[in-house]
Amino acid sequence: MRTANVQRQSDRRTEILDAAERCFSRLGFHQASMQVICAEAGMSPGNLYRYFPSKEAIIAGIAERNRAEAAANFAAAGKVDDFFGGLANLARHYLVERSPEEIGLCAEIMAESRRNPEIARIYGNVDKDVRAGLVGILRGAAECGEISPDLDLERAVICILALGDGIEWRRAVDPSFDPETVLPMVLKMVECLLTHPPAGQANETEKPR
Amino acid sequence: MRTANVQRQSDRRTEILDAAERCFSRLGFHQASMQVICAEAGMSPGNLYRYFPSKEAIIAGIAERNRAEAAANFAAAGKVDDFFGGLANLARHYLVERSPEEIGLCAEIMAESRRNPEIARIYGNVDKDVRAGLVGILRGAAECGEISPDLDLERAVICILALGDGIEWRRAVDPSFDPETVLPMVLKMVECLLTHPPAGQANETEKPR
Repeated sequence: MRTANVQRQSDRRTEILDAAERCFSRLGFHQASMQVICAEAGMSPGNLYRYFPSKEAIIAGIAERNRAEAAANFAAAGKVDDFFGGLANLARHYLVERSPEEIGLCAEIMAESRRNPEIARIYGNVDKDVRAGLVGILRGAAECGEISPDLDLERAVICILALGDGIEWRRAVDPSFDPETVLPMVLKMVECLLTHPPAGQANETEKPR
Repeated sequence: MRTANVQRQSDRRTEILDAAERCFSRLGFHQASMQVICAEAGMSPGNLYRYFPSKEAIIAGIAERNRAEAAANFAAAGKVDDFFGGLANLARHYLVERSPEEIGLCAEIMAESRRNPEIARIYGNVDKDVRAGLVGILRGAAECGEISPDLDLERAVICILALGDGIEWRRAVDPSFDPETVLPMVLKMVECLLTHPPAGQANETEKPR
């Protein structure tokens, strides 16, 4: 009985987070009120507040879910024998396969984090985790000789994520944009950075290769 | 007398747009009310409405100013003998030298354009102009043999702008981020795309070089 209860609570949380994602994406953080989210989730305010006491708590729940998913995706990418193949899978998943709602939600969270300290804290933590995960993947690839051993990994990850964020923003503001059409170019830019880092951003104590 | 009047009106418009930029960047589009903008510009609502009847009109004014500035910057970059030097100047101007207020304002306009059709129309027009300007610069470089003649210019410009947007977003959400630290990597990614486009996104009727 207790297991069934825990499962039911977990399902309910998932339903609420799914409903909130749709509301935030469609209406923006401010106009997606707790009432609107209740209606979308088909539950009473009293019931919803038992699970999440605020919109910030809902965003934290969504962020936690995304973070767990990212960790699983990074682990899978790190296990692929062909490093650039694994990276291409990640890029396709994040840039092409995610739904317009997921893309819209990310845009909303980024925008809101500029003014809402609690959202900034949540977003900052996810960003830190994602960067650390990517740095880990790149470190493994550098050790295997698949990418340049001289690369400044932290900076490279910022550039790679910036390119991904920019593609996502284009999707978020232009529904007619098809990210599939630019995926080969995106991958080429990343591959080039990882295999031929610019002089002066490599480890300068070593000789250029 | 008439010339002095026109000049005074133009100065007043500039002051209002500057004040509005600061308000939108600091408070966001929704919380930056016309009253707040009046206070920041040091003028009465009646006076401000004579120049701009709505926040959308102010955004249109800011966009028009940015568009004119971009056109001038692109023209200057197109005249530099060293194509990649001109491109590096553009990148430094847009990614490093712009103030936090300008960066914040761009973030706000992008976010707001997701839901406000009038802002989406203004933003879409600027985006179209900027893309056409960059395509023009790249076309000139391709004709001079400075970049690959096989590049799909429209798609390349989308990737270049996405990378720039992503760097700007990182500035917008993380005030401690110094874009100077990644500029060489950003330029390397762009140079690589322009000189070695991925197979399959080149003009496929020609042989690979």
